[in-house]
Amino acid sequence: MSHNTFGHLFRVTTWGESHGPALGCVVDGCPPGIPLTEADIQPWLDRRRPGQGKFVTQRQEPDAVRILSGVFQDAQTDARHGGQVTTGTPISMIIDNVDQRSRDYSEIATAFRPGHADYAYFAKYGVRDYRGGGRQSARETAARVAAGAIARKIVAGVTLRAAVVQIGPHAVADDRIDFSVTGDNPFWAPDPDIVPVWEEHLEKVRKAGSSTGAIVAVEASGVPAGWGAPLYGKLDAELAGALMSINAAKGVEIGAGFAAAALSGEANADEMRMGNDGPVFLSNQAGGVLGGISTGQPVTARVAFKPTSSILTPRMSVNEAGEEIELRTKGRHDPCVGIRAVPVVEAMVACVLADAFLRHRAQTGGEAFQPGPPRG
Amino acid sequence: MSHNTFGHLFRVTTWGESHGPALGCVVDGCPPGIPLTEADIQPWLDRRRPGQGKFVTQRQEPDAVRILSGVFQDAQTDARHGGQVTTGTPISMIIDNVDQRSRDYSEIATAFRPGHADYAYFAKYGVRDYRGGGRQSARETAARVAAGAIARKIVAGVTLRAAVVQIGPHAVADDRIDFSVTGDNPFWAPDPDIVPVWEEHLEKVRKAGSSTGAIVAVEASGVPAGWGAPLYGKLDAELAGALMSINAAKGVEIGAGFAAAALSGEANADEMRMGNDGPVFLSNQAGGVLGGISTGQPVTARVAFKPTSSILTPRMSVNEAGEEIELRTKGRHDPCVGIRAVPVVEAMVACVLADAFLRHRAQTGGEAFQPGPPRG
Amino acid sequence: MSHNTFGHLFRVTTWGESHGPALGCVVDGCPPGIPLTEADIQPWLDRRRPGQGKFVTQRQEPDAVRILSGVFQDAQTDARHGGQVTTGTPISMIIDNVDQRSRDYSEIATAFRPGHADYAYFAKYGVRDYRGGGRQSARETAARVAAGAIARKIVAGVTLRAAVVQIGPHAVADDRIDFSVTGDNPFWAPDPDIVPVWEEHLEKVRKAGSSTGAIVAVEASGVPAGWGAPLYGKLDAELAGALMSINAAKGVEIGAGFAAAALSGEANADEMRMGNDGPVFLSNQAGGVLGGISTGQPVTARVAFKPTSSILTPRMSVNEAGEEIELRTKGRHDPCVGIRAVPVVEAMVACVLADAFLRHRAQTGGEAFQPGPPRG
Amino acid sequence: MSHNTFGHLFRVTTWGESHGPALGCVVDGCPPGIPLTEADIQPWLDRRRPGQGKFVTQRQEPDAVRILSGVFQDAQTDARHGGQVTTGTPISMIIDNVDQRSRDYSEIATAFRPGHADYAYFAKYGVRDYRGGGRQSARETAARVAAGAIARKIVAGVTLRAAVVQIGPHAVADDRIDFSVTGDNPFWAPDPDIVPVWEEHLEKVRKAGSSTGAIVAVEASGVPAGWGAPLYGKLDAELAGALMSINAAKGVEIGAGFAAAALSGEANADEMRMGNDGPVFLSNQAGGVLGGISTGQPVTARVAFKPTSSILTPRMSVNEAGEEIELRTKGRHDPCVGIRAVPVVEAMVACVLADAFLRHRAQTGGEAFQPGPPRG
Repeated sequence: MSHNTFGHLFRVTTWGESHGPALGCVVDGCPPGIPLTEADIQPWLDRRRPGQGKFVTQRQEPDAVRILSGVFQDAQTDARHGGQVTTGTPISMIIDNVDQRSRDYSEIATAFRPGHADYAYFAKYGVRDYRGGGRQSARETAARVAAGAIARKIVAGVTLRAAVVQIGPHAVADDRIDFSVTGDNPFWAPDPDIVPVWEEHLEKVRKAGSSTGAIVAVEASGVPAGWGAPLYGKLDAELAGALMSINAAKGVEIGAGFAAAALSGEANADEMRMGNDGPVFLSNQAGGVLGGISTGQPVTARVAFKPTSSILTPRMSVNEAGEEIELRTKGRHDPCVGIRAVPVVEAMVACVLADAFLRHRAQTGGEAFQPGPPRG
Repeated sequence: MSHNTFGHLFRVTTWGESHGPALGCVVDGCPPGIPLTEADIQPWLDRRRPGQGKFVTQRQEPDAVRILSGVFQDAQTDARHGGQVTTGTPISMIIDNVDQRSRDYSEIATAFRPGHADYAYFAKYGVRDYRGGGRQSARETAARVAAGAIARKIVAGVTLRAAVVQIGPHAVADDRIDFSVTGDNPFWAPDPDIVPVWEEHLEKVRKAGSSTGAIVAVEASGVPAGWGAPLYGKLDAELAGALMSINAAKGVEIGAGFAAAALSGEANADEMRMGNDGPVFLSNQAGGVLGGISTGQPVTARVAFKPTSSILTPRMSVNEAGEEIELRTKGRHDPCVGIRAVPVVEAMVACVLADAFLRHRAQTGGEAFQPGPPRG
Repeated sequence: MSHNTFGHLFRVTTWGESHGPALGCVVDGCPPGIPLTEADIQPWLDRRRPGQGKFVTQRQEPDAVRILSGVFQDAQTDARHGGQVTTGTPISMIIDNVDQRSRDYSEIATAFRPGHADYAYFAKYGVRDYRGGGRQSARETAARVAAGAIARKIVAGVTLRAAVVQIGPHAVADDRIDFSVTGDNPFWAPDPDIVPVWEEHLEKVRKAGSSTGAIVAVEASGVPAGWGAPLYGKLDAELAGALMSINAAKGVEIGAGFAAAALSGEANADEMRMGNDGPVFLSNQAGGVLGGISTGQPVTARVAFKPTSSILTPRMSVNEAGEEIELRTKGRHDPCVGIRAVPVVEAMVACVLADAFLRHRAQTGGEAFQPGPPRG
Repeated sequence: MSHNTFGHLFRVTTWGESHGPALGCVVDGCPPGIPLTEADIQPWLDRRRPGQGKFVTQRQEPDAVRILSGVFQDAQTDARHGGQVTTGTPISMIIDNVDQRSRDYSEIATAFRPGHADYAYFAKYGVRDYRGGGRQSARETAARVAAGAIARKIVAGVTLRAAVVQIGPHAVADDRIDFSVTGDNPFWAPDPDIVPVWEEHLEKVRKAGSSTGAIVAVEASGVPAGWGAPLYGKLDAELAGALMSINAAKGVEIGAGFAAAALSGEANADEMRMGNDGPVFLSNQAGGVLGGISTGQPVTARVAFKPTSSILTPRMSVNEAGEEIELRTKGRHDPCVGIRAVPVVEAMVACVLADAFLRHRAQTGGEAFQPGPPRG
């Protein structure tokens, strides 16, 4: 993982600013022969797309993805694969920026918005595209979602599901989480009962010109034992880095996470029995990862997102001239960025898993060893 | 970060198993001309060393480090630098394993200890050095601490301090944290009042043959604005990956972390005023990082550690033959691995910062831009 | 260097096929504040452009580059930098494919052209975009040239000049090489006297439907001492890898190169004297690199290019069905690919040097040590 | 490939100076379950060892390698694998420096030996271990040979053979090369008839206190089609970088190499027919690589080595004080470093191939597609 490239063998390089002509990514290292058209990618982008409800930004972006390279279709591929497939060469994807509303940015052109990366970018680079946040904008996550759509096809046996499990102080109880219902409400809530609570909370937040944080949970089931590699390519370490790289993320935990600190060894270590297809665990405090390697259990993680930094309340700040100022951040903003992070969290987990799968296959051939009676 | 190498420009490659002849690391990319002898490294290793109290493992390891390459001293360097310095070539360090107690490992040779990586290693590799956990042993962290000692010298302006802030359910209140007192007690506690509480808790845990989790907080002050690089080399993302790669880590948070989820935008976004030496922040919910780039505020993080998996209580498990078994993990173990993780957390933060500094200097020359009246 | 990304800190990721909608690259790690518009890049692409003479392919491609990200211009940057500059974020560049002549590719759709990578791509990937060679087409080098244009701006003190020094059996004598005249003829010849010889040779080759090889020499003057890093990031090793990655390259040599094998130690080792600005060398057999590190002398290299594999003579081959066939490669082809490689060789050297400069600045701060009387 | 680490998935990190206590390497990414003891590595080191004849340095080094990690043997592995095997964790190998003759280095402590990297190291780092060349010493290649011994086991189906094919002006004719006889003479000569010629030449060189260059040819047969990855991970590009990273290398060519420049397209492009096991080529000008991907033919390369820079003839130079001096390099030196490079060339090719194999397996699963009648 380095600057704008994510991954080792499944490598995603993203580019683009919020108000430039376009954004996109190049996916390198994808195995050949995988069926892939824009129609495989667009649905995931549509899930992330802004303008879909009153609690997300009203910017209207179709986010239509075009594939510019790395796929091929002809009579041969039709005969062999039934349509357009990846060729093993880099897949370039582009998403035009359409709704760059022509507004007056002069107010923030030289001001550092509190909670934003404006000052940090200025201090590092001495120049920054402030329009809509430039490179720090969450629009960049569209490229991650596009890449994640390809990653999903590489690890097709894995089922990836994320949900918002807390907005502001209102959390879903662990035993109420049902990933199958997240599509039924605009919050990716895994519990229908929390929906009115969150609606009321967000309405209050929105009216106050304020914002609120959130927590997203993600579960990847169907990950076989053996993915990940100690010590600095641990699966959980790479998940932590990948998830923390999402805009506004402030915390990541795997399995029991921070709660593990308060547990006893007996409560924490997952016991094992033999099942029909290998060992089974009687609990999943580990979140599917031990020693940085997957165990075959569902890989589970949670990510904390801070509240949107753009709020209407006037805030103290400074500007590039070193003057003290007061600043309200107008514009179209999500009151809770955590909601739209759900497809992004899934995409990052998909990318990490695809990369881990390829590296595992490289080193070992890809098969997991299973306990059993001595062979031969 | 890949398998057993950590970092991009400040690169640390570690090797070694718990019960092999030695362990060590190779540090590549270190700037030349930095004074360095074993005496600069040994004190940090001594802080991590086992056998220092009844709540840490009784294994007696001197952990004496030897530098095998990458430094030089002669009359010239004495005249120029006042002693032995780094040469810019790879620094190889080795620590002999001394107290590999010859015991009978037959019980765990084919058994998968619950909560350990035994099964994961077996599934991935089909072969594993089970003696003392082999490569998954926390002994590997000695190599991290040695590398961290060098990293500290590269970012000499940074003050790095970690402390245990929670053991089991017993947490230190935020406003009680005083990093200057952590050396006064065997728990790296930043609050003397918590010491008797933890002693009692650990005594109970130890007598029960059980174990307990912990949370470690770390603060790096003196980090200038501008370190870190969006988007996948974000400073906080790299910290998250690095800290999660430590044995037994289950969660990482930056600044307000998971608590940010419950905050309003007003409470979360740190306001700014002008100080004598540039902008100052009126709070530090961000933990010193915005958009993945340091802001000049202290960089703060917290890491959750699960309870030691080796406990005396019999636990259900399986073995390599696929048989169901009951297992008690005898041997010398820390009842709370989080305690000895404190120097390791500091070391990993030091490595991340040294790497970020070098990459920042590469891209920009190393100086931060500062707001002020127009120049010229 | 990995798959489709070149470089460590100055990183170039290229994508695109010969007959896809477009090709391009993403340049990551560029320092901020460097003036950059399309007008800085287009001239270098124009030098590489096809359709410029009877000895290069007649495909007509404007090769117009567009920058999609990573640059910014507003009143602030105008005041500070005098126009649009790099922002330190990834620079995405795109070049549309315009003249993808709609022809019948059915003949080569399943045939392996001798000397081409058709069979190798098939064996590796099982699927390939055969139109115009797909990813193996030399059109990809347009992206390298675009990236090289940016690299040149990073190492602005370096003067980079390449020339064709041999076509077929006809070589320019070493003492006749004058890089300043290469622009005066269509062959990038550094000696006007060779031009009629090459013209006659190429006319014969063209009429015979054949092709011919070539050697390109390159010289980078103004490289300060200290760039490059032993042992596997040696400047000459990276040049060798970079130059050998160009289509049709079969050999690379640095300084005296293969001729050094026949030299004595006295003839080979360049002696030194003190000049006004530090040591000077009395010869340059080393090609400006010793131990993988630049010495301040001009960095010199030569690259051998094989003859174009597409020729009109019928050749024996096989096809995907495993049938033996005879094949003539029709279409628009350069009879000597080495000619158009000249700007590509320069671009690759520029990228290697920019990357070496950034890595050197990272590790050492960027200044070279110079011999002289003791300081202080 | 970066600084002191070579490779992407099969990663070799080397360390150590000529006159430090030891040198060694860490091999990461090795597949598990490969039988490996010191006895598998030592023979390759013995081939490279100094002190074996009057035309190589008289330094006496046993070069005894010890494996410190990454292998395991117990009853289980004995039962499964028949002895000690790799575990998939990093393999640390160490070779003690024994014969660091205590001599007076004061003469070269501040002088820059012509043709050596002394000045380049000084300019870059400002400090250097000059004893025996420090890090620039060819002793480092022992670590490469040790790593290569492991690489060979990963690509066990490949037969790797190198030979000296030219010493000074005396070359072996291509049709006289017989790799099977290289072990019968002290020069790794593939033609017995050249031996007396070289002996006479070297004797003259030695008596004159001079040195001479050489060319080494290498052939890897048994490489299946499909290894290597366009565009910047091309197999030939990686071979070029790897071979050029060897001490004293000045040129690398693949297949026909520089001679290809003078060829016609008809003479250069290798024609194909169907054999019993897939396509066969009627010639091998390509050197087994097309488009950066192996074709199944033998991979062939040649490397040019400059004459040893340490010679007894007084040479003009300068020193750290900026004074002009005359310098003779006394000490124990090979008059022709190319001879002892033979096992190193083999080792580097082995490492490149092992890395290419693992990356190929990662992306594609590892099987090559073969032409044939439609399946199914």
